[in-house]
Amino acid sequence: MAKFLTNRDENYAQWYNDLVIKADLAENSAVRGCMVIKPYGYAIWEKIQAELDRMFKATGHVNAYFPLFIPKSFFSKEAAHVEGFAKECAVVTHYRLKHDANNKGIVVDPAAKLEEELIVRPTSETIIWNSYKNWIKSYRDLPILINQWVNVVRWEMRTRLFLRTTEFLWQEGHTAHATREEAFEETERMIKVYAEFAENFMALPVIKGYKTENERFAGALDTYTIEALMQDGKALQGGTSHFLGQNFAKAFDVQFTDKTGKLDYVWATSWGLSTRMIGALIMAHSDNHGLVIPPKLAPVQVVIIPIFKSSDQLVNLSVVAAKIKSDLEKIGISVKFDDRDNNTPGWKFADYELKGVPVRIAVGPRDLENGTVEIARRDSLKKETIAMNDVNNHIPHLLDEIQKNIYKKALKFRNENTYYVDKWSDFLEILDNQGGFIMAHWDGSSETEEKIKEETKATIRCIPFNNPEEAGNCIYSGKPSKQRVLFARSY
Amino acid sequence: MAKFLTNRDENYAQWYNDLVIKADLAENSAVRGCMVIKPYGYAIWEKIQAELDRMFKATGHVNAYFPLFIPKSFFSKEAAHVEGFAKECAVVTHYRLKHDANNKGIVVDPAAKLEEELIVRPTSETIIWNSYKNWIKSYRDLPILINQWVNVVRWEMRTRLFLRTTEFLWQEGHTAHATREEAFEETERMIKVYAEFAENFMALPVIKGYKTENERFAGALDTYTIEALMQDGKALQGGTSHFLGQNFAKAFDVQFTDKTGKLDYVWATSWGLSTRMIGALIMAHSDNHGLVIPPKLAPVQVVIIPIFKSSDQLVNLSVVAAKIKSDLEKIGISVKFDDRDNNTPGWKFADYELKGVPVRIAVGPRDLENGTVEIARRDSLKKETIAMNDVNNHIPHLLDEIQKNIYKKALKFRNENTYYVDKWSDFLEILDNQGGFIMAHWDGSSETEEKIKEETKATIRCIPFNNPEEAGNCIYSGKPSKQRVLFARSY
Repeated sequence: MAKFLTNRDENYAQWYNDLVIKADLAENSAVRGCMVIKPYGYAIWEKIQAELDRMFKATGHVNAYFPLFIPKSFFSKEAAHVEGFAKECAVVTHYRLKHDANNKGIVVDPAAKLEEELIVRPTSETIIWNSYKNWIKSYRDLPILINQWVNVVRWEMRTRLFLRTTEFLWQEGHTAHATREEAFEETERMIKVYAEFAENFMALPVIKGYKTENERFAGALDTYTIEALMQDGKALQGGTSHFLGQNFAKAFDVQFTDKTGKLDYVWATSWGLSTRMIGALIMAHSDNHGLVIPPKLAPVQVVIIPIFKSSDQLVNLSVVAAKIKSDLEKIGISVKFDDRDNNTPGWKFADYELKGVPVRIAVGPRDLENGTVEIARRDSLKKETIAMNDVNNHIPHLLDEIQKNIYKKALKFRNENTYYVDKWSDFLEILDNQGGFIMAHWDGSSETEEKIKEETKATIRCIPFNNPEEAGNCIYSGKPSKQRVLFARSY
Repeated sequence: MAKFLTNRDENYAQWYNDLVIKADLAENSAVRGCMVIKPYGYAIWEKIQAELDRMFKATGHVNAYFPLFIPKSFFSKEAAHVEGFAKECAVVTHYRLKHDANNKGIVVDPAAKLEEELIVRPTSETIIWNSYKNWIKSYRDLPILINQWVNVVRWEMRTRLFLRTTEFLWQEGHTAHATREEAFEETERMIKVYAEFAENFMALPVIKGYKTENERFAGALDTYTIEALMQDGKALQGGTSHFLGQNFAKAFDVQFTDKTGKLDYVWATSWGLSTRMIGALIMAHSDNHGLVIPPKLAPVQVVIIPIFKSSDQLVNLSVVAAKIKSDLEKIGISVKFDDRDNNTPGWKFADYELKGVPVRIAVGPRDLENGTVEIARRDSLKKETIAMNDVNNHIPHLLDEIQKNIYKKALKFRNENTYYVDKWSDFLEILDNQGGFIMAHWDGSSETEEKIKEETKATIRCIPFNNPEEAGNCIYSGKPSKQRVLFARSY
């Protein structure tokens, strides 16, 4: 166990924070609530971006860029949206600083007050639909399938690195369609893209489902979500995809002429996934030794560590390491050779375990004699010795197996921590002890949902897609219910 | 000539603006000075990003992300920097809106005033060096070679799409080094990277050189620049690379222990290139038909247009087009097949000329009979008919030739518009008539430089690298001079 990490089972929150800092992923900045994403953490984000961007383009989307600032009045145009987003936000009121007359450094110039305040975007529906108004006249201009990769700001009082920060990075898709059906299909398509990404790349099993009215995006008629279970038994919401109906088209007066010549409002969706997913990645898989990163998102997939006492030995080992590295790189595997001489191999082993590098190759003088290397996998910490000339065949399979194993482990954990509960006392006990996903009956009313939240801090994470009908009684009110829904405490 | 474009030779500024709008690259937004970069314009930025990012990584750099907001006090720490950057900027003063008691919509909540105002970053030296302070203790922590791709805001009074906007996108590299020499090498390395990018990808010949003290980055000891000539005879500054000495290390107290155990301040560089380069790309190569985009940065390199009267013909042509498209895509060429039936071929020809697609392939029923296609190149507008089964060999060579030809044309233009001038009257006449680069003697004083700027609006764009020594007399003061420097009016 990495001694500098808090034990995961003793204090999960502190373990998480230690891990983010010690593994050099991110740190707090001088600006309250805003993080610095360090190169190793950002490299994971780049991997996430590359895969998602490829998936977005494969489904017909293009990227664009809309302004950082949104005029205050735009928020008021959609009634639900303003309630959800225009409250805790960064407000730009002035556009100039000047030297203080009393020489107290620089101060805001009162003469440079903006006529209308600008809000740093917390999400971009309003500024984007204000543009779409000029782009859409006819059904021939539809669909518009645009995404943007940007920073957004929501003024959070309690922040945690990656999970909840005042500024964060995300992508937000904003699409416009001629029909309700098309917009619905798009909303579904994108939640499926998110789920596929989570499962195949993040090795994170997720439950796709609908949000209840209480938990919907402000301004949406329907919100789809993917929900994952963290190792402390709390849920984490991954990407969300929103069916916005004609709400924003009506708010910004975006009408089009359909094929029959009739005017109608445009149908909309939006969907987003943020740097928060890095928090999920960390919390779902990592352990007391440090990060466990699925190979498909690992900035470094293989590290080679030479075991040497003399510099002559290092020279010989370097030749072999360079060959292994170049062979593996040729088949698309990212490799680091760590030949630093100011740290012991043992220190390096611990450091790359902390950083979650999926595979470690150690090679020493005896290996040179025997034509072998020692392979250690990060997920199980198991070691094996293999023939040096087998490395190129072995590693791709091993990476694949590690990817699958991390997923399998997370799925097993989720299965073991999903409870079908029918008694209120069991509901409370599970939440207060082990946590987990709770499938329980609900009477369908917002009041019940709110009371459960007040009393237990658990929320309805979603109503799963293709949820089986089952007659029962609401876990809280006892009223009749047609289906179980997914409850959990969440991040 | 595209009828909807203003003639380039009659009104260059209006031609540029028309082109940006009509080619669907960008448009003004509801927020003064902030642009919307539309998908076609953003696709060019993505190409620029991909190439530069590859070059940055090949020279050892990694990406990271630092906060959007900078505490006001940070700017005051470096004396020259505050003068240059902390003036015209977006100032966040509050973090909450609320409903107005008198029901006038939402207003800024006076209770949510920040203790210290936050500035939306105009550039990130201060927030980054405030972080580096905690990262650097020893020479072993150096060098730090970090870049970030972000948005920045400088409150501009007069804005023009891409060329000067309140918000723009850029990359900013910020490196930290143990020695002056290393930092100097880095400053040079990155201006060379920019020059290589400009010449090889943008097909834009540039002059590398030093800025005079007046024109340096605020806080730099030396600024290197690449300067390009636009078709109206004005210069445009591309990327810049700054040697910052120990200024920011001193301002933020960043010291390290060197190999001998001695404490010293860290040496710094920074370097940046922005969406302004898209403006340069447009202005350097385009004509009265529309954009001319070098193939290496073209979002679509080849467009296939079917010439048909009946839908039967279209079916047959589509089979052939699909084959050509898939064959070209296999060798890494991006191809669009435009089979829309609501526009004539002639309309499409004009539209793709406007959009600057480097190669157009037209194929009609007669071509099917003859086994031919018609190829048109955007740069010269020349057409030729080639055998259908020769397309896959021909197109890559043609794209390569177009790339080179665009560069050659721009170089020829620059050579023809670079003047070695010794008389003040010639200097004035050239500026007021044809414009261009003027190589003239300068006495080396800031006063002379400023007077020339006041009287002519021309500035010293740079002192070229490896500038030949040549005895002469200052074009303005007549005082002795050792070398010619590059004057021009500029964007």
